[in-house]
This record gives sequence, C-alpha cells and structure tokens, in this order.
Amino acid sequence: MLFADLLIDQIKQKSPICVGLDPDPSKIPSYLLRDYSLTNAILRFNQEIIDAVADLVPVIKPQVAYYEKMGIDGLKALKITIEHARKQGLIVIADGKRNDIGSTSDAYADAFLKTGSDFESDALTVNPYLGSDGILPFVNACSTYNKGLFVLLKTSNPSSGEFQDLKLENGEMLYERVADYISSWGENIIGESGYSSIGSVVGAYYPEVLYNLRVAHPRQIFLVPGYGAQGATAEDLRCAFDALGGGAIINSSRGIIYAYKDNPNTKEQDFAQASRDAVIKMSNDLKNAFKVTQ
Amino acid sequence: MLFADLLIDQIKQKSPICVGLDPDPSKIPSYLLRDYSLTNAILRFNQEIIDAVADLVPVIKPQVAYYEKMGIDGLKALKITIEHARKQGLIVIADGKRNDIGSTSDAYADAFLKTGSDFESDALTVNPYLGSDGILPFVNACSTYNKGLFVLLKTSNPSSGEFQDLKLENGEMLYERVADYISSWGENIIGESGYSSIGSVVGAYYPEVLYNLRVAHPRQIFLVPGYGAQGATAEDLRCAFDALGGGAIINSSRGIIYAYKDNPNTKEQDFAQASRDAVIKMSNDLKNAFKVTQ
Repeated sequence: MLFADLLIDQIKQKSPICVGLDPDPSKIPSYLLRDYSLTNAILRFNQEIIDAVADLVPVIKPQVAYYEKMGIDGLKALKITIEHARKQGLIVIADGKRNDIGSTSDAYADAFLKTGSDFESDALTVNPYLGSDGILPFVNACSTYNKGLFVLLKTSNPSSGEFQDLKLENGEMLYERVADYISSWGENIIGESGYSSIGSVVGAYYPEVLYNLRVAHPRQIFLVPGYGAQGATAEDLRCAFDALGGGAIINSSRGIIYAYKDNPNTKEQDFAQASRDAVIKMSNDLKNAFKVTQ
Repeated sequence: MLFADLLIDQIKQKSPICVGLDPDPSKIPSYLLRDYSLTNAILRFNQEIIDAVADLVPVIKPQVAYYEKMGIDGLKALKITIEHARKQGLIVIADGKRNDIGSTSDAYADAFLKTGSDFESDALTVNPYLGSDGILPFVNACSTYNKGLFVLLKTSNPSSGEFQDLKLENGEMLYERVADYISSWGENIIGESGYSSIGSVVGAYYPEVLYNLRVAHPRQIFLVPGYGAQGATAEDLRCAFDALGGGAIINSSRGIIYAYKDNPNTKEQDFAQASRDAVIKMSNDLKNAFKVTQ
C-alpha cells in the first residue's frame, strides 16, 4: 500500500494524532535518570510511551535534534526508538528538516528513507528553501522505497511570517508559491485515497491559512504542529481536514509525553499511562471540535 | 580571538580556500576499501587529506549528509574527522544546513557548537526559512561558545532561484530580504576585522549577485560553494571579496578530494598528494584572478 494510503487508512482506524518524541533530560522522570545512563533513560522513556499509545495513534515523530544533541549515544537511542516504534506497527516521521542539493539530498534521503539504513523511517520532514533540485532527490527516494515526505510550508513559530508571508509582486504570499511547488513535486505519487505521499507542514495557528491551503491543495496531507503546548485549539484545526475528516495529522509533543507533570497527583512511574490519558483526551477534544461522523 | 577574526586572520595567512570533505564510497581509492571497513576507509581518506592540506587552507567543511547516510558508524567517522582536523589547527565548518525553531534549534546548536559535544565544530551552516526565532538560538550559541554560523542566502544549485529570486511587492528579491536579516542577526558579534561571526552562503555562479551583496553587507563573511566541479571560475569569484582580498572563503569539494582521479598517471596511493597539488593550483588560480597584493 502506498505510504499516503497507509497513513490515511491508519488515521481513520486510530486517530489523526502524531506523538512527538522530543526527549528533554530536564523533563523525564528522575527515577529513570537515577537508574540508567542518560541515553538508556531516554530510550526507556520513549519505549514505554510508544507501547502505551501504539493502539491509539498512527504516527510518532522523533525530533532528530534532541538525539543529535546527545551525540553518538543519542543517535543510537534514535535508531532503537525508530525500530521499536515500527515494530509496534507505528508510522515513524523523522523530524529532521533536512535539506541540501542534488547528490547531498540523495545522501540525506538514504540516511532516513532507504531500506535497511540505521535511521530508516517511514517519512522525513524537509526544508524547501533550495528549490526543486533540493527536494526531488527525496521525492525519488519516496518512490523507490515507498516512503513519505513532509515539506515545510507555513511553520508554527512566531517569526515564520518574516519570509513565508512575504507578498510577491503578483500578490501571492511566498508560502502559497511553495505550496504550489509541493503539489507539483507530489503529483506522481498519489494513492487510491486521493492523497500524495508528498505532504506539507502547516502550523496550527492560522485557521484561515489552513482553510485556503486545504482547498487549493486537496492532495497534500498536512502535518500540523502547534496543538497543545504551542497553544492552538482543536477548533483552530478543523480547517486542516477534508470534508470526510481526513487529510491531516495533528502533532503534539510536550503536551503528551510530559503529561505526567501536569497533575501533581500523578506519580513519575505512571508517566506512560499519563501520556495515554493525554492522547485519549486530545482525541476526544478533536472529535468534539470536528463533529465528524466516521 | 572572535571566530570571525580568527577566520579572517587564517584566510590571510593561508588562503581563502575551504576543502569540502564529502566522502563517496564509489570515489575513494579502492585499496582503502579493500584494507579497511567502509567507515575506517573513509576516516583514513579524510585524515590523509587533512594532513596534506593543513598548512595550505584555513578551513575544512565536512558535509554531514554523507556521514549520516552511513548511520551510526558514519557519524563516528564524522566525529573523529572533526577532532582530527581541529587538532591540526584547522577551522571546521559542519555543513549540516540545520534548522528548526526555539528549543529545537537550541538542541541543534548544542549538537554542533557546544564545547565538548561529540560533533563540536567551529561553525555550522543553517537554513533561514523559519525566520528569526529559528536562527537566534544558533546566534546565541555562537556568542556563548565563540563559534560561527553560515546562513543559506543564495545557493549555487540550478533551481535556487525558484524561491530565493522571487521578486517581492517592493521590488526586492527574497534573497535580498534574507541578506538583510542575516546582517541584523550578526550585528552584535562583530570583531576587530570588521566582520561578523554570522556569515552567509552565496553560490559562485552569480558574479553580479556576489558584487551587490558584498557592497550591501560588508560585515558578512561569504562561504562560497560552486568553484571547480560545480563550474564557477576564479574570475567569477572576485566579487565575493572586499577591496583587501578578504571577507570570503571559497569551497571546493570533489575538485580537491578526488583530484587523484583527474590524471590517469596518478596512483591511488598518492591521492593525498594529488589533493595538495589541487589546492596549490586553486590557490594560484585565485591569486591570478584576484591580483591581490597581500
């Protein structure tokens, strides 16, 4: 099954939720740090959360930076985390925002998308600033290995507008031009679901932007950060979805993986159950806001 | 000494040349691949080239993608390559084109710029598409650890114009707006040389672009790819430099590290000497074109 179809199918079967695994040593339970080395503590933290949410969410998204920060040992933890999640039947999006040109993009594609590579994931986030010949090597890898890509389009950070919202001489915004390119890059990898394996990253802060992009680009699956800790509400997110409640996957990282810290009565040891509870809460929150009959 | 001043000083003392270490298993000498594991062959290849050029060039630039492609072992080779080059007195620019927002950019900065990290380099390339709050964490790390940054501005690939050359409603090109931001990001880390530790990446293909940017942004050190294998001539590059022949560092990767393949009479075993010869040839080529008296 094509990556896009698999993702759309899994969203329907489970929920439109992606759990971001951004391990922060200052936030993971202290007993893990006491009993294990730092990287093993993080690995154990990730594995317990993965096991606790695997039946509820289709996707986990490790943020590569947090592992790279810990050097070689951190990257070993990333490798094992990805392997564990895939064994549990989860789709893994490596959030690396990689980008370069030609043969160098090929090398990054090999690192994250090639069958059997250490960091083999199901999809990768990439940055479009270098244009088509920075992205097409990744697109080709998606065709070869049946993987997916999420291209940064309109990000959720406060200063995303500095460049992405610049108005071009024809009245378009830069991000609208980028969106057109993303659709063209993905036009040859469209599945039976109607969606392409080449999707985009669109922040949850901008309901009107989400709505306009949804209408203009019906084949892009949107990966939407910003829910929860970053401040967007379920109501803001409705516009990311198509009429059938598909076509988008909503990421939450800190709001789920550190949920055990939100309630002073929750024991550290129950962090994974707290994450599961947070996913259920988010899922209900989204269902109520969307009022989608499935 | 501030990173910017150190780089400018080393360029004066040695040459304005950066050697890109982009190891490609299909191009490194076959006897190394026969005698060593792949990653040890690459490590040995890198180390011999570093030793052969260390007195002639101020900077080496490992392209992170080529190491990441080889997984954990490749990243160990990257770590040891960086350490070896720095021990030899070379400035190391990690070419990672990293980018993200807020605390995630902090994590990438820690990975490549923090004292004592596995991949600690002297500078890092980054991508500006997310705007100021994607870049300022890296700038802060440069202040804290006395490191440098090279922000993608106008890249050397054929499709770089798709977004970077878009004309804005006020008549500016997108890359000109990005250039203004880069200057503002670097305005508090300017050394006695007059240059900032926050520089930019500008491709060698566009002499008129180089000239205009050089005039408009006198405090940015330009990292200039495109010489040699990518097709730009020394003449094209003159515009990257200031009136005293400073302010830019010209990268060549394949043209130097695989120089042994250019002459059928060169034995594989002499690859490092061939790289040294290629650096000397490039240095003379630049000197002739620039006619700079130093």
